[in-house]
Formats: sequence, structure tokens, C-alpha cells
Amino acid sequence: MKIAILGYGVVGSGAYEVLKNYGHQVKRVLDIRPHDELGEVLTSNYDDILNDKEIGVCAEAIGGLEPAHTFVVKALKAGKHVVSSNKHLICEYYDELHALAKENNVTIRFTSSVGGGIPWLYNLKRAVRCDNITKIMGIMNGTTNFILDAMITDCRDFDEVLKEAQALGYAEANPSADIDGLDVARKAAISSSIAFNTIIKEENVSVFSLRNVTKSDIDFILKSGKTLRYMGFGIKNKDSVSCFVEPVILPKDALEANVNKNFNMISLFGDSVGRLSFFGQGAGKYPTGNALAQDVLDIVNGDYKLCCSFGDVTVDNSRATRDYYLRTSVKLDNKAEYEANGNYYYFIKGNSVSQMHQLVNSIKEKDPAVFCAGIEG
Amino acid sequence: MKIAILGYGVVGSGAYEVLKNYGHQVKRVLDIRPHDELGEVLTSNYDDILNDKEIGVCAEAIGGLEPAHTFVVKALKAGKHVVSSNKHLICEYYDELHALAKENNVTIRFTSSVGGGIPWLYNLKRAVRCDNITKIMGIMNGTTNFILDAMITDCRDFDEVLKEAQALGYAEANPSADIDGLDVARKAAISSSIAFNTIIKEENVSVFSLRNVTKSDIDFILKSGKTLRYMGFGIKNKDSVSCFVEPVILPKDALEANVNKNFNMISLFGDSVGRLSFFGQGAGKYPTGNALAQDVLDIVNGDYKLCCSFGDVTVDNSRATRDYYLRTSVKLDNKAEYEANGNYYYFIKGNSVSQMHQLVNSIKEKDPAVFCAGIEG
Repeated sequence: MKIAILGYGVVGSGAYEVLKNYGHQVKRVLDIRPHDELGEVLTSNYDDILNDKEIGVCAEAIGGLEPAHTFVVKALKAGKHVVSSNKHLICEYYDELHALAKENNVTIRFTSSVGGGIPWLYNLKRAVRCDNITKIMGIMNGTTNFILDAMITDCRDFDEVLKEAQALGYAEANPSADIDGLDVARKAAISSSIAFNTIIKEENVSVFSLRNVTKSDIDFILKSGKTLRYMGFGIKNKDSVSCFVEPVILPKDALEANVNKNFNMISLFGDSVGRLSFFGQGAGKYPTGNALAQDVLDIVNGDYKLCCSFGDVTVDNSRATRDYYLRTSVKLDNKAEYEANGNYYYFIKGNSVSQMHQLVNSIKEKDPAVFCAGIEG
Repeated sequence: MKIAILGYGVVGSGAYEVLKNYGHQVKRVLDIRPHDELGEVLTSNYDDILNDKEIGVCAEAIGGLEPAHTFVVKALKAGKHVVSSNKHLICEYYDELHALAKENNVTIRFTSSVGGGIPWLYNLKRAVRCDNITKIMGIMNGTTNFILDAMITDCRDFDEVLKEAQALGYAEANPSADIDGLDVARKAAISSSIAFNTIIKEENVSVFSLRNVTKSDIDFILKSGKTLRYMGFGIKNKDSVSCFVEPVILPKDALEANVNKNFNMISLFGDSVGRLSFFGQGAGKYPTGNALAQDVLDIVNGDYKLCCSFGDVTVDNSRATRDYYLRTSVKLDNKAEYEANGNYYYFIKGNSVSQMHQLVNSIKEKDPAVFCAGIEG
């Protein structure tokens, strides 16, 4: 079975090099830009790949919805397996792409779309087939972890660290997808869809932004003997799933407390296997390229039995209950733990995720700088 | 393809239940003890399994060398795939069993032999096929991690915590294999064999025991802002491999520093993927049973292309250099950092692993209570 790579950007070229360096020839690479080093392998005409019967697997690393979506649909309809690193595409078209793969008797794999180089989704799929997964959670975004780690370790301001992250290439010029949680929401939705055999859309994920975290929040949290991370969650209830993204206050001896810089760590909790955690580089040319290449090699090796099934499980964030930290200039009925510079610092016990997200949204109208974090462990 | 389980002890019965609960029937279980709940599935005659052409995979969970070795050899020769949770067997007969599997065009898998429920070896094999692994390291023994965690967290004595571990069933009545490092040596040898495409025997692994660690060592290490774990290592040199087991002094923000109780964490370092770490339960009926079942399901699903190759790489522990902590009543030429109760506390810079293990062995004649730990990070 021959391999094609769609898109020769950071991840596509990383996967190309990884495959080549370990003895696997890529037959065609699709890109509209010139890449002299690719010679005859390069094409800008997708039909060269679609019509090539030798090519059995297309690795999509274009990113975004179009033309990635059109290309992936055509590949599946042409009976080619698809591998993708594109979380936006996978999250948006999860049901359509899986149905098309099934119809055409091929497989779709997307390990590198969540957690970069970490074989998280692959191992999650493997776990699901003989365990009852009750919870997934993780640090799934390197940019926000880099920001929090620097704020905590070096006592720095959010804006200053964000600028450094942008200069280092860890954060986009428009950092919203990272710091406002859309990136993690998509990753939590994809992970929860696999973990709980359902289809979760990004719009069903409740999200607290990290944007409003301040040095005073960090000081207060550290003084209470805890630390802070930004994480996605999926929790199985009796007949529904809760899925949300929040800053999270953790004990200092939590594994995640020592996940530093731009690293990721994602965990599953299974009835028989217990907790399994996976740590590594959540982004980057070679780590993500490696994960894309691994999915390709699984398919080349004939390992494509790991598929997803879809039950009728809906998202219900009123079913997950936890404690919260809330800092706002708005005076609530609750007793504040601490008060400084016109801000009240609250610990709020046993609220549901949906209640708390509603409360914070209503506070936001009066106090746009409000910051809220779940408390874990 | 039908499944047989050899040995219905803790791990075998765990795997049986996991497979059964997720819709996979086990056709036969071999055990010499009665297990009424198994009915017709149980047999004490191995020929019932060997001669059953429907049975394509045997999961060995007997433990020890005999009769496990004889049974596994017979299964491979009969053209049946083999899965094993038996680190002693795999380490002792690594070359023979792999050669037999190749000869008979079947596969041998042993993920659950290292790290219990953690899919470590499976992911290591997957990593090796498209990366250059330069190092593996990990907390691979739950008993010694439980002991160290309790000594550090609760300021307790080694002997007292060992007794608790024995009462909880974490440690054997004869705890030597755990606390003197044989268990970790076998796991490091198996992991390094896969990581570096070679065959490493337990006798080639240099081992420092954990037995001599005292409260005063822990105090000294904590006061220097570090912490202590017991770990196995495999390091790739230019044309050899270093493989050793040592107590290790780590920074408090190392991931391993927050691996508490009897949990395990094992890591690989690859040129393209970077560091990947895997955390979970290193033992137990359901975690290890789950990992055994996963290997079985891979084979049932036709995923048996992940095999090992063997180059001509030897173990050379003179090639890995690191710093060491040494506590002994023997006065050395080095300048001691600290002196108390007739003991000298040294930091020794840049010794090779083999030099240091020789030095400690020579000191042992005068000071049987000597304690030495490598320094990592």
C-alpha cells in the first residue's frame, strides 16, 4: 500500500521526513507551493493521488475545514484510508467522516489531532474496546500551559508571557483559539466522543477562558497550597456525558502540577485498568509528524480494526458537580475567603458545571474581568 | 480465532473477566486447581488446548520459568500466537521465544510483563518502528515506590514501611526481588531490548539495591531540594547500550517526583517524538489482566506486525556517565558534603555507571550499610 501526504506544511513535512528516515517511501505529496526537494513526488493536482490505485492511505495535514474536508471526503469515497492531524476538521465532521469510512470499508485515524506527538487517541481507542471509561481529562494545549507555568514559576503577568509565547511561535498572532479554550474544547470533544462512544460537538462543550487569570489569582492559589492548570474534561454520567474546559486548581502533588512548559498530559480512567496518563509534546513538526506517520504505519501494517461506535449519549453539564474558585468585583451572597483591591475571592462548593458557567456568564456583564477555576482532587 | 488462558491466578482470572465482560469468549483455561465457575472451559490437560485447531492465541499467566516455558514453546511450535505477562520467562528466553515465533510465523506479545496495566511495551514497539530511541527510564516497581513515597511523605523508616507493604500485599514475604532490584532489572532489560533492537540479559544489568536507604538519606536529599525514586534505565551509546537500576535523586518538579504510592511511570526519548511518558498501575488483577487482554485482542484483530529485530549491540556500563550521591562510614579521598553519626555524605561528579558500581561493591566489604543513588536532571 502506497502513501500520500496532503499538505506539506509543518506537520506534513515532519511526517514526510519521519517516514522517509525509517524506510517508508511517500509516493505523492499534494501542495500548491513549490518544494524542489520533493521532485516528482510533489503534485498540485489532487486527481494524481485520487486516481492512483497504488495509493491506499492519504495523510491530511492541510489544516482548517476547506479544502481539507473536500479532499478527505473524496479520498474515503475512492476507498482510500485517511489519517488526519486536523482537529477542526475531525471535530466538525466526526459523524460524516466515520460514516463515510464505514460505507467505503476503510478507516479514518486522527491520533495527531489531539496531543500532538502523544499516542493518546490511539491508546484511548485501544482502552475503550475492553474497559468502561468513566472519565478523561488533560492538559491538551501547550500554549496555555506555557503561559501558566511561566506565571507560576517566574511570578510574571499574563500579557507579558503571552507576548513571549507569540515570539517563540507557541502562540498565534490572534491567540484566542488557545487562551479562550476553543482548541481544548475541540480536543476534549474528540477525546470524549471516542471515550464514551458518542459524538460531541464543540458547541456542546462548556468553556471558561484562561484570558482573565491574574498574578493575584496565582498568588492566592499558591498560598492555599495548590497550583493551576488549564484542562479539558469528559465525564460519564449514568446516561449522559459532561464535557467542559476550565482552569483547574490542583494539589501540588498532582501529576499535572509537574507538567511544565508547553508539554501536554492526558489521562483516562477505566474500571479495570484504573488511571492511565500519557505525557509528551503536544505540538511541533517532528512530534506531531511522528504521530501522523504512526497512524499511517498502523494502516500500512493492516492494523485498522480499531474503530468507533456511536451510542445515543448526549452532553449534560448539569450532571457533573464540583467545587469552584471565583474571583470577581461583584459581591455575591457567598462568604468571600479574601478581599483585596476591589475583588472578592470565593470558594464555592458543589455546583454543577452548567450552573457555574451560567453564573460566571451573568457576572461577566458587570465584571468582564471575572475569573473562575474548577477544583480537582 | 479462539483464545486460551494458561494459569487462572490473579492475572489470568483478571484477563478472563476483562475479556468476558467486553464480549470476548475464552474457549479454554488451563489450571490444575478446581474453578467451578469455569465449567467446561477449565482443563488441566494442556493437550486439550494444543490440539484445538480453533485456538489461535494462548495467554500465559502462570508466572515463573517452568512449566510456563515448556507450555509457551509448545504453543509457538503448534503455530499459536502467544501473549505473556511473565517478565521472568520473557527476560530469560527472549531470544529463543522470538526466534521460535518467527520460525512458526506467529507473534509473541508481553506488554503486561513490564508496567502492569500501562501499555508501555506496546507503545515502545510502536515508537521504535519510526524513531531513534536514545533512552528509556522509569519507575517500574510499585513496591519500592510505595516504600519511598511513604518514607518521604510521612518521614517513616524503611523497615516499618516494608512491613506495611507486606501486610497490604504490595510486597512478598521475601521482598528481595523488589527491594534488591531484580524485578526492575528484568523490566529494564526487556524494555531496553525492544528500544535498542538487541537482547539484554538480567545479568548484564548493573543494580544498586534500595535496601540500605535510611531516614537520614531521605532527610539529606529533601534538604538539598530534591527527591528520591527507584528506577531502571537504558541508554543508547554510539555502539553499545548502558542498562542499570539505581535509586535516583530527582528535582522536585520532575514528573516522577509526583508518581506516588505504588504507581509506575516509564518514559522513552525519541529523536523525532521527544519524551513520551506513560503512567498507571504497575500491578494488580484488573490492570495487568486488562493489559494481557489488550495484547490478545490485538492479535485477534490481526494486528501482529509489530515485531522485534536484533542487532549486535552489547551492554557497556562504562559508557554512561553521571553524578552520584554516596553515604558510607568509609572515609574516601573525596570531600564530604556532610558528616553525621559516623557517616560521610558525598556528591561524586561524572563517574561512569560501571566505575561507581565497582566502587560501591568494594566499599560494601567494610560498610555493608553503604547507600548510593544516581543524580538525574
